[in-house]
Amino acid sequence: MTEKLQVLYKVHSDASSIEERALGLAIEQSVEAPLAAVRDPCVLSSIVGRVAAIGDRGNGWFDVHIDLSSATVGGDAGQLLNMLFGNASLYDDVVLEDAVFPADLIKAFSGPGHGAGGLFARANVEGRALTCSALKPQGLPVEGLAELAFKLALGGLDYIKDDHGLANQLFSPFEDRVRACAAAIRKAAAATGRRTRYVPNLCGGFSQIEQQIAIARSEGVDTVMIAPMIAGVPALQALRRAHPDFAFIAHPAMTGAARISPYLFAKLFRLFGADASIFPNPGGRFGFSEECCGKIVEALRGPLGGLRASLPVPAGGMSLERVPEVLDYYGREAMLLIGGALLSAPPGKLVAETAAFVRAVAEHHYR
Amino acid sequence: MTEKLQVLYKVHSDASSIEERALGLAIEQSVEAPLAAVRDPCVLSSIVGRVAAIGDRGNGWFDVHIDLSSATVGGDAGQLLNMLFGNASLYDDVVLEDAVFPADLIKAFSGPGHGAGGLFARANVEGRALTCSALKPQGLPVEGLAELAFKLALGGLDYIKDDHGLANQLFSPFEDRVRACAAAIRKAAAATGRRTRYVPNLCGGFSQIEQQIAIARSEGVDTVMIAPMIAGVPALQALRRAHPDFAFIAHPAMTGAARISPYLFAKLFRLFGADASIFPNPGGRFGFSEECCGKIVEALRGPLGGLRASLPVPAGGMSLERVPEVLDYYGREAMLLIGGALLSAPPGKLVAETAAFVRAVAEHHYR
Repeated sequence: MTEKLQVLYKVHSDASSIEERALGLAIEQSVEAPLAAVRDPCVLSSIVGRVAAIGDRGNGWFDVHIDLSSATVGGDAGQLLNMLFGNASLYDDVVLEDAVFPADLIKAFSGPGHGAGGLFARANVEGRALTCSALKPQGLPVEGLAELAFKLALGGLDYIKDDHGLANQLFSPFEDRVRACAAAIRKAAAATGRRTRYVPNLCGGFSQIEQQIAIARSEGVDTVMIAPMIAGVPALQALRRAHPDFAFIAHPAMTGAARISPYLFAKLFRLFGADASIFPNPGGRFGFSEECCGKIVEALRGPLGGLRASLPVPAGGMSLERVPEVLDYYGREAMLLIGGALLSAPPGKLVAETAAFVRAVAEHHYR
Repeated sequence: MTEKLQVLYKVHSDASSIEERALGLAIEQSVEAPLAAVRDPCVLSSIVGRVAAIGDRGNGWFDVHIDLSSATVGGDAGQLLNMLFGNASLYDDVVLEDAVFPADLIKAFSGPGHGAGGLFARANVEGRALTCSALKPQGLPVEGLAELAFKLALGGLDYIKDDHGLANQLFSPFEDRVRACAAAIRKAAAATGRRTRYVPNLCGGFSQIEQQIAIARSEGVDTVMIAPMIAGVPALQALRRAHPDFAFIAHPAMTGAARISPYLFAKLFRLFGADASIFPNPGGRFGFSEECCGKIVEALRGPLGGLRASLPVPAGGMSLERVPEVLDYYGREAMLLIGGALLSAPPGKLVAETAAFVRAVAEHHYR
């Protein structure tokens, strides 16, 4: 029969009712009906979720391991999310902690089309981590964003991405912005001889996104950003299939709301085709722990049924001073993203500050 | 200038640092950069979020009212969600509680194309609540689902929807299922003289969804279900615009009750075009309170810049016995959804049990 999708939930419960809770969860996340309403013997034997194990974590929290049938996923990213946590997300005492994907499920998805290695190859970089910054704040007119892109590219960055707040607003519509920023980066490349990659942020419905991809391609752009929990995970899956020439960087917006562990999101985004994943580095302005980020790195780089590795992109309140420490932690297989701290440099010093960031990464002696 | 999008967050914090937290949230959800990096006076004056008020709720929780510029939304459903909670979702001590949409923002979205009234008109029903059940469990072959659809339709229901777990799995692929269930319901209509509406569940990437809409339309289907937090809210917005002949029922999968209030989700889904919204009724198997459901009803039916009302669809562990109580609570402007409890009836009694549900709704004397 079909292989098992192994899911781990954390459930807050009385010890006396945890078995019933676990069984309820297994039913909710599979047939979503009382067992009295499940008469087909095949459904009973192969589709109804099974409680594989329950472990006591202390303080009223339990590990609940549930096996689901991978046949229920049907090769769709949205449906995988639905099976993992669709209705269970409505329980405020249940956390989706982790999942182990069987081989047939992994095969149904494609994973990164380029992966970490592809992002290094695009930037023509070996032996060091990649550098990245962000165009912000939203509200700036197109010319202002293009000027920032020009200066950041002059400073020698590998990648420059749109802020995830840059959508298709009147103050900087997607098409005008992408054409202007791509041109600014070409101008910088003509001056420096080194090509920076501009990474626009995709947004809107799928037909808009298709138009955005076409605009990006016409400007020589080959790497884009998408927030899968804003655009919908099926959009990432569909884009990865429809546009194999593009690399995709996943943004974590809205990943926190649903009580799903950040490293499972990292694993899912990799499965669906993200070549890189942005996440908050410990010590920045978000509360992710070092342990959590270690698990994110493992989810992105560790073995996953032969899929390419995704590149970790630690971000979120990073500064130039922290570059050595961050490089020692993540090693060469990462992209360092410093946004606001670079842009806080006086306009006349932005190129120099960017160059200092690039130099710090290039000259770092990894421990 | 542009109008203000008023957002209410609940933040857990020390009293001594709540002002700093609130300011940080206002910046995170607008320019997402240190103010030192924001030099454009227009951005500073009109795009940077403002802390409008802070209120102490007790127990370390604070109400933080933040005003954002509606110009940042750019008329995109995904970007509205991003502005409301994109990065803030990564803070585990912040809850998105509510939002007030200014007139220009509401105008940029279309709201329900048919609304509650349209769902009653389709069913040719006046003066009573609507009835609905669900085809489940997933795993059943197409013939099994079609047989259920036939019996439920013979029982006289107004609407029969796919379970939200029915995607495009091999055991009941979308096209085969929709054609078979639509045919089964036509056969029942030929016998009873009364037409039940079949509501398929949309899933997958946008091009798949477009194909699904075409299949549904070719079978005379005019109402479909979508889980906006699985498919992506931009999909609901785009479908509502592209297919004005269709009505859309929103499913709450992945709305993750604890960190975004369920009634804000209800309001958002209405704004984006949902004609009806399913949510867990108090006393069912989810922990939604009566107060919360009251607010959901207000979000769906209350004034919202002239948009049509969405129809409340209480569900989630409902039973025949509870029909009078539920009708008294929601009144006539609702759709009652009983799934598993109906389907638990022995196969030979399913038509009679469904007819009893229909009769209980039709003959109820509203308080």
